[in-house]
Amino acid sequence: MKAFRFHNPTVLYYGAGQIEAHLAAEVRKYGSRVLLVYGGGSIKRFGLYDKVTGILKNAGCTVFELPGVEPNPRLSSVRRGIDICRNENIELILAVGGGSVLDAAKAIAAGAKYNGDVWDFYTKRAVVQDALPLGTILTLAATGSEMNGNSVITNWETKDKLSTGSPHLYPKFSFCDPANTVTVPRDQTVYGIVDMISHVFEQYFSPTPHTPLQDRLCEAVMRTIVEHAPRVLEQPDSLEARETMMYCSTMALNGMISMGMEGDWATHNIEHEISAIYDIPHGGGLAIVFPRWMEYVVDAGVEKFYQMAVRVFDVDPAGKTKRDVALEGIGRVKTFFRSIGAPSSLADYGIGGENIPVMAEKAVRFGPIGRFKVLHKEDVERILSACL
Amino acid sequence: MKAFRFHNPTVLYYGAGQIEAHLAAEVRKYGSRVLLVYGGGSIKRFGLYDKVTGILKNAGCTVFELPGVEPNPRLSSVRRGIDICRNENIELILAVGGGSVLDAAKAIAAGAKYNGDVWDFYTKRAVVQDALPLGTILTLAATGSEMNGNSVITNWETKDKLSTGSPHLYPKFSFCDPANTVTVPRDQTVYGIVDMISHVFEQYFSPTPHTPLQDRLCEAVMRTIVEHAPRVLEQPDSLEARETMMYCSTMALNGMISMGMEGDWATHNIEHEISAIYDIPHGGGLAIVFPRWMEYVVDAGVEKFYQMAVRVFDVDPAGKTKRDVALEGIGRVKTFFRSIGAPSSLADYGIGGENIPVMAEKAVRFGPIGRFKVLHKEDVERILSACL
Repeated sequence: MKAFRFHNPTVLYYGAGQIEAHLAAEVRKYGSRVLLVYGGGSIKRFGLYDKVTGILKNAGCTVFELPGVEPNPRLSSVRRGIDICRNENIELILAVGGGSVLDAAKAIAAGAKYNGDVWDFYTKRAVVQDALPLGTILTLAATGSEMNGNSVITNWETKDKLSTGSPHLYPKFSFCDPANTVTVPRDQTVYGIVDMISHVFEQYFSPTPHTPLQDRLCEAVMRTIVEHAPRVLEQPDSLEARETMMYCSTMALNGMISMGMEGDWATHNIEHEISAIYDIPHGGGLAIVFPRWMEYVVDAGVEKFYQMAVRVFDVDPAGKTKRDVALEGIGRVKTFFRSIGAPSSLADYGIGGENIPVMAEKAVRFGPIGRFKVLHKEDVERILSACL
Repeated sequence: MKAFRFHNPTVLYYGAGQIEAHLAAEVRKYGSRVLLVYGGGSIKRFGLYDKVTGILKNAGCTVFELPGVEPNPRLSSVRRGIDICRNENIELILAVGGGSVLDAAKAIAAGAKYNGDVWDFYTKRAVVQDALPLGTILTLAATGSEMNGNSVITNWETKDKLSTGSPHLYPKFSFCDPANTVTVPRDQTVYGIVDMISHVFEQYFSPTPHTPLQDRLCEAVMRTIVEHAPRVLEQPDSLEARETMMYCSTMALNGMISMGMEGDWATHNIEHEISAIYDIPHGGGLAIVFPRWMEYVVDAGVEKFYQMAVRVFDVDPAGKTKRDVALEGIGRVKTFFRSIGAPSSLADYGIGGENIPVMAEKAVRFGPIGRFKVLHKEDVERILSACL
């Protein structure tokens, strides 16, 4: 492993009854002027909005609202939120929703404390130095945003989907109750599953040598996702199945399974270019790109793909070359994605090859991407072409 | 899993060069009057003392010292440390050593902010409400004390070895460099290995149902310890092998692998009664007691023992009853302990049965122990008798 610094300051509340028992006290640590950030209204349909605003009002908070944050959250929404923070002297942002809502709230938290344009953080023109305190109530098992310092935002004027990260962007507290995810529709559930396992792939396929425990921790999360995903799709109202998926999604990207490992993240970069132009769900894009990335880079580290095949997918290595076992493992990833109903090619979204050169160009705008195998523009073009 | 709150605030620095790069800045966050707590002098022999005091002095700190903290750290040493803190207005305690030094430093940190006797925290007469800031530099892979809020102290006047825990006792920062463990003697290395895998056992054998990811995370740590322990004993100066053991010991007891699971901890309770009377190494006692505890409680949860046997020790279940597979797994634990040279019975330390009733009585002083199976005095007596 590499030398590392690890610090995850988020206070995590998991399970039933935690919002009722602890939300008011957590909020009051930071102030009483709260900006509630949420999405398309499902939190109103299922009663979470009433519960949370009731608790905030009983706690003496003045609540301002930014509703309507989109999937693939937009810079325009972020800017509206920043204006509210500045005009109303917001002391705490409370994001109630899935990863998009949380990521938008992080952008607002950083932008409200910055004298320039918040987009600077995503274009790498500036580094986050400060942020408003942020709390979250999660309603979708997917991004892990509830316990990390990452944020992804889309600028629709320029069709750019970019990410930033900072120690200042970790939520101060996050409430994860699987009961708030039982109404998530099937397609969103599937995209969440793809997203969480993809996060583990990005960390697992690392150029860092000698990470035996980290490898096994990553494999633990992958294997649990693969085993339990069918259950949550068969029984979407099973609290137990939802709980397992929610907990996997948090552990998949809170840094705990890959300390001292350099991640790859090329696939996320490539997918962001697709959804930045076509506005497809991030998880759908990942299900298409990841197996093709794996096939493209397998020879950069056959051993690691072999290890995944044997340890996560129980591929029998007897009488096979390591490379064949590795490829069989990649085949199992495809089979898994197909089995849960995820898309398998860009054609599934009616996307053709016309923008591949543009997407490839933008994917490497900050330089070559990927660490397991470094990818240049032409590599990205080949991977995208394989996705058609 | 159960509903839970998780917060691990420790800033963890791992690997080479981190002390030189970051210790001064971390210390300065808390003040300049530092109490350096350490053990028997190995940190002086191997240069760590000079390195650390040099950094502290360059950072403008006034350094006070509490040397000579014992294995199975003693209340008398803790009281000396508390006196120094009070008399010298100490602002930060810096513990340099293994788990005993760190645990003593935690007791000092709590005691210095308490108007009563620090032993009250261990006898459950008081709860830690505040503590001096504590930083650590770890020199032994074993207890996980560098990233948790636990402390175990022995009162030699009463022959009581008791533990306490508090959110206030998490180190503010910990530096773990495997290079500082390469000179650890073979017996201490072995005891550390037993201690770390025992910590995972205590969490894994839980009464909490439905913890599929937590189970696999625990298995990841157990399996890595079992696979890599022989390497560190064969090549004690291998930085890579030391690194793996050190990282396993931290992950084994920082709370990350067992969120929402109730631990058992009966074996630790029982072992503490042995070392409180006979002053044997904690890891040595655990190697004796744990397999006997497993055999005694196996029927309280055959399924979990079966799972460990298959997933951690690759026991082939074909044609066997679940209970037979479970027992075979317990046999593999014994084999593992024997293979690394750990003791296997109290006779190895020349300990007979004369104090078994006293030890059993004291083990349940606060009520029955254990959660996987609740143990009363007579259960503890039977387990201890099996250890003779």
